[in-house]
Amino acid sequence: MAEPRICSIDGKLTEEFAIPSHVEEVKEKMAAFARFHAEAGRRVVLITSGGTKVPLESRTVRFLDNFSSGRRGAASAEYFIDSGYAVIFLHRHHSLYPYTRMFVTINMLDALQFMGGGEGAAGNGAEVVVNQQVLPNIAKVLKRYQEVKDGGLLLPIEFNTLSEYLHLLKAAAQALNSIGSKAMFYLAAAVSDFYIPTSEMPEHKIQSSNGPLQLSMKMVPKILSPLVKDWAPQAFVTSFKLETDASILLDKARGALDTYRHQAVVANVLDSRRGYVVVVTPETQAELILSKEDVKKEVEIEERIVSNLTSEHSKFMTQAASAK
Amino acid sequence: MAEPRICSIDGKLTEEFAIPSHVEEVKEKMAAFARFHAEAGRRVVLITSGGTKVPLESRTVRFLDNFSSGRRGAASAEYFIDSGYAVIFLHRHHSLYPYTRMFVTINMLDALQFMGGGEGAAGNGAEVVVNQQVLPNIAKVLKRYQEVKDGGLLLPIEFNTLSEYLHLLKAAAQALNSIGSKAMFYLAAAVSDFYIPTSEMPEHKIQSSNGPLQLSMKMVPKILSPLVKDWAPQAFVTSFKLETDASILLDKARGALDTYRHQAVVANVLDSRRGYVVVVTPETQAELILSKEDVKKEVEIEERIVSNLTSEHSKFMTQAASAK
Repeated sequence: MAEPRICSIDGKLTEEFAIPSHVEEVKEKMAAFARFHAEAGRRVVLITSGGTKVPLESRTVRFLDNFSSGRRGAASAEYFIDSGYAVIFLHRHHSLYPYTRMFVTINMLDALQFMGGGEGAAGNGAEVVVNQQVLPNIAKVLKRYQEVKDGGLLLPIEFNTLSEYLHLLKAAAQALNSIGSKAMFYLAAAVSDFYIPTSEMPEHKIQSSNGPLQLSMKMVPKILSPLVKDWAPQAFVTSFKLETDASILLDKARGALDTYRHQAVVANVLDSRRGYVVVVTPETQAELILSKEDVKKEVEIEERIVSNLTSEHSKFMTQAASAK
Repeated sequence: MAEPRICSIDGKLTEEFAIPSHVEEVKEKMAAFARFHAEAGRRVVLITSGGTKVPLESRTVRFLDNFSSGRRGAASAEYFIDSGYAVIFLHRHHSLYPYTRMFVTINMLDALQFMGGGEGAAGNGAEVVVNQQVLPNIAKVLKRYQEVKDGGLLLPIEFNTLSEYLHLLKAAAQALNSIGSKAMFYLAAAVSDFYIPTSEMPEHKIQSSNGPLQLSMKMVPKILSPLVKDWAPQAFVTSFKLETDASILLDKARGALDTYRHQAVVANVLDSRRGYVVVVTPETQAELILSKEDVKKEVEIEERIVSNLTSEHSKFMTQAASAK
């Protein structure tokens, strides 16, 4: 009985969400990346990160957005790489990015100076250097960034709109299907639950002279369902649940696992998300908490989340192998 | 007869838009900046830049946004400074910023390298330099950035939400009122026309399980009206009109001038906004167009807009002086 619903999600995707022109090209790139790293003995994680943009007009001036800096996804990418994974980083354009995230709060021009420091040295062709008092970690971060780049361990893919996100995620799932249980999905992006179908969208900017705005938005198809059942049925899939009301959080997380039958939900509350999460699996429930001591040492909760999930992924792969 | 409506805009601002806690402090800073530069013989322009965020929930997960990278505001700030103005840059957090805007498309870590280039030099404490093949203009831009900073010619103020924007703009107008016709307002920000009053906003994240989303949004008060009449009646005020439909653009621009009685409207169409605008004043209408030759030479339309408006501002100041 589930078949028609799944078909209809696929159908809806094609009909109501514009297909990005580069989706096949990106899919081939992701498939090659996954094959290469799987053959080299690495696992591959697809991280989604940042919020989605939902246009209200086809020549878009206004859009609905979801709060997300992309911090969790960008930080997690680094820890997955440190744990031996290759990472496909499917992220919102201009959201936080692995490694560069560390100095996004600084105006880069405040961190640069002319060699020797003096204004006299400021002619064209003068050497421009980083002031390491402003960016004390820059040498370490740059070194790691270059290693990761040279190793080809990070494949960045960008999206902007909800439509791009949905189609690129589908393409990623199909691309990673070939490496079976070695693939993990880490769906940290903050995806809109609502949208306006292309057919119902006004072409031009909505005029404020027409009075107050009445918006009627449809529900976005639950793409987790075909992802788990059809597109990448052998992969380890982690979804995220963010709420502002802590009292409904764990029920929501369990509910999602019951509905979609995937492997893990990272449950978190908006206000405490940087110091507390619960990783919920069908059999377990692990609370991850940063202590004051951890915070002082600048430990990040993403290190704990990634450590927990890589263990779960190992067990999952062992079970998958023994089931063969 | 206009009095009650103006009162009600001020009343609405206080009642329905949360007042940022730092607004008085920022107002004092802007007033001191304006006084200092006016005494030094400079004109002062208040530039607004970037889109506004309109929360749909009070613990905000979702929001309505307006498309705007902040490019026009950031570029214009540079040309105003080059024309002898001091600039208050009231911009959306993380929108494009003067000078740094030039390399925002580049991952900064791709533009840095260890001194000498070799990996061997990459220890901690190693000098990190800018690769000027990746950023060929960096020395010139850094030099200009440092001059502007040393001269105290740029005062950046950030906003995120529509509420912050509205209250900070009001504060800016009141702060600049003391320098009379030497003040210009250049309202390039893409401000939402619609909002949900605090009193009607749900506290928690809207649940997608409740079905499709019906949003009813009120119209944002037209703040240009009290700005021109009450808050800074002697200033030169430029508003912007962006449309996607070119056929209604000029009527809209003239309509705005008739309604608000300010000095200029910069009218532009979404698709062509980087190469064509019309500056509309009560008496004139100037088409500014970049030729292919201009584009090749990397001339920016903002240079033309600023040049046009500084001339208009000069005339305006002369008239204001002779009217005394």
